[in-house]
Amino acid sequence: MSNDKRRRNILKGVAATAALELLPEAKAGNTGAAIPATTPRIIAEGSVPRWDGETEVLVIGLGCAGAAAAIEAARAGAHTLVLEWTSGGGGTSAMSGGNFYFGGGTPVQRANGFEDNAEEMFKYLAASTGIAPDLEKIRLYCDGSLEHFQWVSALGVPFKHSYWQHNFEPWTDDCLWYSGSEKTHPYNTLARPAPRGHKPEIEGSSTGGRLLMEKMQQALLVAGAERVMDARCVALIKSARGRVVGCAAKIAGELRHYRARRGVILTTGGFIYNPVMVARYAPQARPLPPLGCGTDDGSGIQLGQAAGGECINMNAIAYTCPVLMPLKFIKGILVNEHGQRFINEDVNHKRIGEFAVLHENSRMYLIVDNNIYDKPRFPGVRLVAAAETIEELEIELGLPQFCLQDTVETYNFHAAQGRDPLFGKQAEHLKPLDKGPYAAFDCGLAGGAPYSAFTLGGLHTRPSGEVLDMDGCPIPGLYAAGRATSCLSAQSCGTSGIQIGEGTFFGRLAGRSAAKNSVDSTHPLR
Amino acid sequence: MSNDKRRRNILKGVAATAALELLPEAKAGNTGAAIPATTPRIIAEGSVPRWDGETEVLVIGLGCAGAAAAIEAARAGAHTLVLEWTSGGGGTSAMSGGNFYFGGGTPVQRANGFEDNAEEMFKYLAASTGIAPDLEKIRLYCDGSLEHFQWVSALGVPFKHSYWQHNFEPWTDDCLWYSGSEKTHPYNTLARPAPRGHKPEIEGSSTGGRLLMEKMQQALLVAGAERVMDARCVALIKSARGRVVGCAAKIAGELRHYRARRGVILTTGGFIYNPVMVARYAPQARPLPPLGCGTDDGSGIQLGQAAGGECINMNAIAYTCPVLMPLKFIKGILVNEHGQRFINEDVNHKRIGEFAVLHENSRMYLIVDNNIYDKPRFPGVRLVAAAETIEELEIELGLPQFCLQDTVETYNFHAAQGRDPLFGKQAEHLKPLDKGPYAAFDCGLAGGAPYSAFTLGGLHTRPSGEVLDMDGCPIPGLYAAGRATSCLSAQSCGTSGIQIGEGTFFGRLAGRSAAKNSVDSTHPLR
Repeated sequence: MSNDKRRRNILKGVAATAALELLPEAKAGNTGAAIPATTPRIIAEGSVPRWDGETEVLVIGLGCAGAAAAIEAARAGAHTLVLEWTSGGGGTSAMSGGNFYFGGGTPVQRANGFEDNAEEMFKYLAASTGIAPDLEKIRLYCDGSLEHFQWVSALGVPFKHSYWQHNFEPWTDDCLWYSGSEKTHPYNTLARPAPRGHKPEIEGSSTGGRLLMEKMQQALLVAGAERVMDARCVALIKSARGRVVGCAAKIAGELRHYRARRGVILTTGGFIYNPVMVARYAPQARPLPPLGCGTDDGSGIQLGQAAGGECINMNAIAYTCPVLMPLKFIKGILVNEHGQRFINEDVNHKRIGEFAVLHENSRMYLIVDNNIYDKPRFPGVRLVAAAETIEELEIELGLPQFCLQDTVETYNFHAAQGRDPLFGKQAEHLKPLDKGPYAAFDCGLAGGAPYSAFTLGGLHTRPSGEVLDMDGCPIPGLYAAGRATSCLSAQSCGTSGIQIGEGTFFGRLAGRSAAKNSVDSTHPLR
Repeated sequence: MSNDKRRRNILKGVAATAALELLPEAKAGNTGAAIPATTPRIIAEGSVPRWDGETEVLVIGLGCAGAAAAIEAARAGAHTLVLEWTSGGGGTSAMSGGNFYFGGGTPVQRANGFEDNAEEMFKYLAASTGIAPDLEKIRLYCDGSLEHFQWVSALGVPFKHSYWQHNFEPWTDDCLWYSGSEKTHPYNTLARPAPRGHKPEIEGSSTGGRLLMEKMQQALLVAGAERVMDARCVALIKSARGRVVGCAAKIAGELRHYRARRGVILTTGGFIYNPVMVARYAPQARPLPPLGCGTDDGSGIQLGQAAGGECINMNAIAYTCPVLMPLKFIKGILVNEHGQRFINEDVNHKRIGEFAVLHENSRMYLIVDNNIYDKPRFPGVRLVAAAETIEELEIELGLPQFCLQDTVETYNFHAAQGRDPLFGKQAEHLKPLDKGPYAAFDCGLAGGAPYSAFTLGGLHTRPSGEVLDMDGCPIPGLYAAGRATSCLSAQSCGTSGIQIGEGTFFGRLAGRSAAKNSVDSTHPLR
C-alpha cells in the first residue's frame, strides 16, 4: 500500500495538465503524429525544461517484450512506468497466435510422450538461426525454457496438454506442435527432434496472442507497474556523462519528459512498417507484404542507434510462405524456374520462403499428381497448369525441355525406394508422383502466393538486455528486448514461436537488469 | 610560389618535434599500433590541447580514393593535407592491376570498334550491382566516365589502344577487356554489351596499380597537396555544434591534432582485415581469404560511424573465384552438390563465387570432357574425379544417382542446338560434353579453390561525398569515398574495375566538395 502510494507520488507529474513545452511543429499548429526528421532523437539532460514524470525503470512499448520487462522490473521492486504509443497496447504480439517456442521437457511435451532437453533444443536453434547465431543468447534461452514456461503459465496463460499433428499453428485450442524444422533434414541429423511450439489454450489461430497480452497486462498492473497510453516516445535523454536518464514523449501533441533513474528499456518492435528503413537495410523485403502492425516502424531502433547503439543483422528477414497446405501437398515437389528442386518440401514454410526469395528469384511451382491434388488452403496459391503427363505440364509451364521431366523421374525413382538423396525429405512424405493428371500451382511471390515478411535485425544487446555500442560496450542506462533487437534468429528464421518466446524471455532479463541497475549517482534525489 | 609559402606556413606545426600530448597507453610505455577500444573515436574540439597542424582539406588514407580527393582539393585551391598510416601509401589500389571500369565510348573502345554510350553503361551497372543500387551514383559515374578517362590519362597513366580477348585481367600491357558480365545472360538482354575494363599499359597483372599510385602521388604533390606518412588517424575532432573540424593521429607514438577548416575526407578502405567487423556484419565471409591489405581494417568506417555516420550494405561482399581458367573451361559445366547446374558458366567469376558461397553451400564442381580437359591455371582447383562415363563420374563424386547424368544429358541436348534455355550461356561456349573420359574439378571453397573476399559496405554518402547520418542528413565537415563507403556495387559485385573506377571518381568529387565547403565560421582565424 505504502509502496503503491510512493509510486503514485513519484509519478504524479504525469497527471499534470498544465501546458508543457511543445515541439516546434506542435507550436505551429501541426499536431499530426509525424515527427520531422530534424527533431533530435537525443536531448541533453541539461536542456530538459522540467520533468513531467519520474520512475526507476521506463519501458517504451507494450508488446510482449515490454510487458515482460515491466512485470519483472516491478516485481523486483523498482518503480516501473510503461509508455505505449497506441491506446490499447499489445503490438504485433496481440495479433499473433501467441505461440511460444518452449522446450527442454515441458509438462506438455512430457504429457505427450516427447523427450526433450536443453542441449537438443540448443543444437537445433544453433543450427537453424543463420550463419553466426548468438550462442550465448540461445544457451540462456534453452537452459531457462522450463522456468520460462512456468513463468508464463503462472501469468494465467493456459496450455492444454494436447498434441496437434499438423505443420501449421493450431486453430483449435490444442497446444503442442512441430513449429520448426526439427524433424527435417538437415536438422534431424544434428539434434534429436521434439515439437516445441506451445500455443495457448484458446480456439482460433490469432486469439492466442490477444489472450497472452491480456494476461500480461493484468500481471503488469498487479505487479504495480504503471502505464501511460497514447504516448509516443520521440527522444531519449542523455546526461552529460553519456548515461540514458529518460525520454521525451509526445502525448496529445504535447512533449513530456520522463526521468528514469535506473534505466530505459526499448521494446518497440521491428521496422517492417518503415519503408525507408526496409529499403536501406533489407531491400529484398520491399516487395513482400509486411507482417506486423504499424507500430513496427523502427522508431525505437533508431532511438537506440541515435544514443550510440549498434544495429546488427539489419538485412535479416523472416519470410513466411504457407503454400504447402493441406499437409499432403508436402508429398508434391517444389521446383524453381529451371524445373529443379531446391529444398526438402517438409521444412518449415519460413525456410521455404527464405530460399525462394533469396536463392530462386522468388519463382517457385508446386507440382502435384492426382493422388494429392487438392484445393489450397490459402488464397493466392493459383493453379496455373494441368496436364495428363509431366512432359505436357513442362510445356504448359514454359520450362526448358526435359528439366521438369528429369526432376520428376529422378525424384520418383528415389521416392519409390523411400529415399530423397538430394534434400532428405522424410520418408513419410515420399511417394512417386505417377498418377496423372498432374498440376502445378504458382507459389512465387509475383504469382500472388501468400508471402509475408518481418524484420529480424535491430539493436545489438547483451543477453541481459544492455544495448551495446559499436565497440561492444554497454550504453549506461539503456536496455532493449524483442524485435527492436537482434536476438535468437540472428540471420534466419525457420521456426514459429521464437518471436514471442524470446521477446518475453529476454524482456524479463532486461527488466531485471534495469531494476537492479545502480541509480544514476548524479541524481539530486539520492 | 606565395601560395606554396602560405601552405607551408599553415602546415608548419607538422614539422614541430616538441613533445606532444600522448595517449594513455603511450605514456605507459606501450607504443604498439593497437589502439585500445576505450580510446574515444570522437574528441571534442574544446578538449584539444593544441593544434599541431592546420589545413583546409584533410584526407585520411592514401589509396586511389584519397589520392584523387587530394589532387582535386588541391587543384581547387584548398590547402590539402593527406595523413597515411603506412610509410608508402597506395593501399589495396597499389596491389591491384589498376584496372578501371570506363565506358561511354572511350578512345580505347572506339579504336577497337566497340560502340558504347553512358546509357548502356548505366543499364548494365544498374542491373548488375544488387537489388537496390545507388542509381544516382551510377548515373553520375556513367555520365562522367569519358571525362574521368581523360583525367586519369592526364595524370600520366597510359592506356594502350589494344583489346584483350580473354575473360581475365591482361597480364600483358594490353588494355581493353570484358571485365564484367556484359556479354552474358541476363545482362546481354538488358544492355548492349561493350568491354569496359581498361588496364594501364604496363606488363604484369599486378603492376598496373603500382603505376597508377605512383602517378597519382606525383600529381598530388604537383598540385601542392602535402603528405604525412606513418600517421595513424585515431579520432575525429568535433566542434560543439557537431561539425567535424579535424582529427587526431598517432605519429611515432605521439598524438597530434590536425585542424581541417573545410572538411575531413575518409578514404581508408574497407574492413575485410577486421575479423571482428567481418564476424559482426558479413559472417559469411569469415572462411574466405581476404583480398586487400592490412590497412583495410575498417578503422575509417568506424570513425565515421562514431561521428554519427550511417553504415549501409555492411553484409555485402565481393567474392572472387577465378576457377574457369583456361578460357575453354567455360565450355564445361558447374554443378552444385546435387549435380544441378545453377549459373551460366560464362559470367564474371565474382558472380560465380557469389552464387557458390551464398546459394550453393560453397560446394561446386567443374565437369569437363576430354575435349576441353586442361591443367587449371590456378592452384587449388583440384582434379577430384575422372571416369570413362558420366555415370561413373557421378558415382565417383558421390552425387545422387541420375542427377549428374540428367544434368549432362539435358545440357548436351540443348547445347547441340546451340541453346542453353536454363541459364543462357552464350552459344560460343556451348558444346556437348560427349567425349570421354570425363573429369571433375572441385571448385568449392572447402576444396581449396582460389576464392577471396573483400567488403562492399561502408559509410552512406551522397555522390558528392558528404557522409550521411541515419536520417540521410550530411554531417557537417565530413566526407568519404572509396571502399570506406557503400558505392556502386551496393549489394553485389560481378565486375572488375569498379573499385578503382569509383574510388578515383567519387574521391575526386569528395575532394572538390570539401574544397569548396564553407569554412567553419566559428574558426578564430577568419
